[in-house]
Amino acid sequence: MIEVEVKARAPEGIAEKILSLGGELKAVENHHDLYFNSRVRDFRESDEALRIRIKEGGARLTYKGPKLDALTKSRLELTVKIDDARQMEEVLINLGFVPSAELRKRRTKYSYQGTTLALDEVEGLGSFVEVEAEGAGDIDLQRQKVLLVLKQLGLGQSIRSSYLELLEEKGLGSKAVKGEQI
Amino acid sequence: MIEVEVKARAPEGIAEKILSLGGELKAVENHHDLYFNSRVRDFRESDEALRIRIKEGGARLTYKGPKLDALTKSRLELTVKIDDARQMEEVLINLGFVPSAELRKRRTKYSYQGTTLALDEVEGLGSFVEVEAEGAGDIDLQRQKVLLVLKQLGLGQSIRSSYLELLEEKGLGSKAVKGEQI
Repeated sequence: MIEVEVKARAPEGIAEKILSLGGELKAVENHHDLYFNSRVRDFRESDEALRIRIKEGGARLTYKGPKLDALTKSRLELTVKIDDARQMEEVLINLGFVPSAELRKRRTKYSYQGTTLALDEVEGLGSFVEVEAEGAGDIDLQRQKVLLVLKQLGLGQSIRSSYLELLEEKGLGSKAVKGEQI
Repeated sequence: MIEVEVKARAPEGIAEKILSLGGELKAVENHHDLYFNSRVRDFRESDEALRIRIKEGGARLTYKGPKLDALTKSRLELTVKIDDARQMEEVLINLGFVPSAELRKRRTKYSYQGTTLALDEVEGLGSFVEVEAEGAGDIDLQRQKVLLVLKQLGLGQSIRSSYLELLEEKGLGSKAVKGEQI
């Protein structure tokens, strides 16, 4: 499905603000994310992502397509629950994908006005809020909704860069695989 | 892990023979297998396989590496349980893999002398027995064991071709993706 989402840097006291506005605490998760790149097309250029996420509830494989508009980070997102992250990693490596980066974060999830708010403390990057529309529906309406919620929370400029891209900007990110093209 | 396995055509009455020799019936499964090929290297030439198997107990993604010896069909096999075969198929297609063949079979599984016997009735191909060593261990010893069991069952020539390759030989198999190389 299409994931309609915006992200912004989180100022001090944002958790209290979410709760005071009526946001409902849903979960606290610890994510260990393993990113992979392709030897055929550089996902940093094609704006795709391939990730294994390990968290308390189990592991998942996720593919994300290129972003669809200029204001939000909405994109195709496909997720499959998997029983064995290590085995999945081996499958991807045997298929020619290259481990490119790792990311650890603590995510606190809230439900707020038909959106899911994720307050992320990302190792090496700081704190961010992601606002994601819940369920399916008209993408333009969902886009308006997540942008409105961002405004209600008093959050500034939407950041379209992924955590992976932000890590790269800081020089902590994914290894180049260009030299290994086949 | 390395899957140590041999396969042979199954004659009439093989199920009764397995039981009379002390084989223990373990399970009956219906498999719907979806095979994928790569646009980068033709898996028919590289002797690899990428498969989603849908069966009663759920779906699995499996990667198989090239065969390791001339007598058996032993090879690296990596399997991950997945919660959604359709979503996994979409992930593979977005990553550039190409659906190449479908295969349906009914598998009756027996345990026999430290091996698993799979009596397969394959749509369009007929009946086969696969003998697979159970658990980990010395690969040469496992190879001797599965070849011995094949002999005890009175089965003839070991067939190293996969069902996918046998389908191709009958002209029922995987679509060429060579014309679609990127």
